[in-house]
Amino acid sequence: MPRYFTEQNSEEAVNGRMGASTDPRLAEVMTCLVRHLHAFAKEIHLTQAEWNYGIDFLTRVGQICSDERQEFILLSDTLGLSMLVDAINNRRPPGATENTVLGPFHVDNAPVRQMGDTISLDGKGESCLFEGVVVDIQGNPIEGAKIDVWSDNADGFYDVQQLGTQPKWNNRGIFVTGKDGRYSFVGIKPVSYPIPDDGPVGQMLGHLGRHPYRPAHMHYIVSAPGYETVVTHTFVGDDGYLTSDAVFGVKETLIAPFEKVSEGQTLWRSPFDFTMTVA
Amino acid sequence: MPRYFTEQNSEEAVNGRMGASTDPRLAEVMTCLVRHLHAFAKEIHLTQAEWNYGIDFLTRVGQICSDERQEFILLSDTLGLSMLVDAINNRRPPGATENTVLGPFHVDNAPVRQMGDTISLDGKGESCLFEGVVVDIQGNPIEGAKIDVWSDNADGFYDVQQLGTQPKWNNRGIFVTGKDGRYSFVGIKPVSYPIPDDGPVGQMLGHLGRHPYRPAHMHYIVSAPGYETVVTHTFVGDDGYLTSDAVFGVKETLIAPFEKVSEGQTLWRSPFDFTMTVA
Repeated sequence: MPRYFTEQNSEEAVNGRMGASTDPRLAEVMTCLVRHLHAFAKEIHLTQAEWNYGIDFLTRVGQICSDERQEFILLSDTLGLSMLVDAINNRRPPGATENTVLGPFHVDNAPVRQMGDTISLDGKGESCLFEGVVVDIQGNPIEGAKIDVWSDNADGFYDVQQLGTQPKWNNRGIFVTGKDGRYSFVGIKPVSYPIPDDGPVGQMLGHLGRHPYRPAHMHYIVSAPGYETVVTHTFVGDDGYLTSDAVFGVKETLIAPFEKVSEGQTLWRSPFDFTMTVA
Repeated sequence: MPRYFTEQNSEEAVNGRMGASTDPRLAEVMTCLVRHLHAFAKEIHLTQAEWNYGIDFLTRVGQICSDERQEFILLSDTLGLSMLVDAINNRRPPGATENTVLGPFHVDNAPVRQMGDTISLDGKGESCLFEGVVVDIQGNPIEGAKIDVWSDNADGFYDVQQLGTQPKWNNRGIFVTGKDGRYSFVGIKPVSYPIPDDGPVGQMLGHLGRHPYRPAHMHYIVSAPGYETVVTHTFVGDDGYLTSDAVFGVKETLIAPFEKVSEGQTLWRSPFDFTMTVA
């Protein structure tokens, strides 16, 4: 370990300071973090003014955080880090349903509903029948799979963003498959919406010439005993933001057809099958 | 540019999203930042739980910041980033006085004092004569060099940390050299002190088996028309923390002798010459 810090030995000087009894995983993470942090500053020759800006930016990100607002998650999302961590930790074989980001709007313990029920309680939006089958990688139906589903309403807000305005549990529900593995429910065709962009992350997107919109999507957590839980979305196939999702959540295999239907109660039908892998 | 984000193309997917009219320097900085951020997550296979911890840690760092406390600067300091940015932006030829970090305790417009005056106003500590000459790289004295000096008091606190307790401008002063380039003033032998360690950065140091102390030092900003301003410290040569400064500020050339003296008013004498480069 160097006795004194220099521009040349900076990484060793900092990492060499760690105590011998540091948790091995923490030591590994910090060593890698310091290496990349220093390499970043060296490669771009970070100026003092840019460092000042960075300190101020991170401080503003921290200061706007509250119980209702998590700007550091937004920052991670918009820099692709959230999706990357999700991808790294959920590698699956071809054919298995892919994961995508959970997002901040999931609520535990939504009402369990009967197959075919509606989850849309505010009477807004274009109704859509969601249906399909939950299968294993060999195509066998999975009985007892729990499908926890949620979406925004036709105005682009989740119920928890409009407590007191939207009915409780609007556009949320849990469905449990029977022997045939099939599911179906009525919701609305979800709509695209902007992530909160009135803070420092929104300013960053502005400076980078990026819009804050997410393409319309339906959220799912599909779980079944013995299988790896799938945290994912399905995306509305004709959304204009599919290739420019502000949080990079779109995967090609998660784009679902939304077909206009003329008969019955609903205006749209969106079929999608979930393929689960053994845990 | 990839249409959809994958683990493999993550860097290109994020950086490819930048608008064509993005400021070129911002584009360069962000491209490099995203590359290193993603490489970090991939190399260590960052888990979801570790990501959660990181988000929470950064949020706590931001939330403890106030007008009196800048925890993100502490984080940058303790990860060696502050010193690295200082080093990158202040490369000087051999023989020139090296820079080190400014620190958070400088105050503009300290009183201009006469050569030989004392800056220590609280009567605490072991008095020390600081003296030397300000020269150019050829060794010629520099007339009109402004030496802005500050240190902690014998209890390890700067006056601005103890407003109302310490006399105003305690251990601060500005001295201007004459034709001979010489300076001298009486202060105290500074003492080592911990950086604020009751927040998340202190917790981090604890987890890494690191102490929060800075070795005793005297701060200087030396400026003269036509010369590059030197922001630096001199360090007390026998301090026990010299090779483990919590913020990595020590450079070998900045370690000054502190000699015990028996005659005169002072207990110590610390000679140090400043060598300036043309701006």
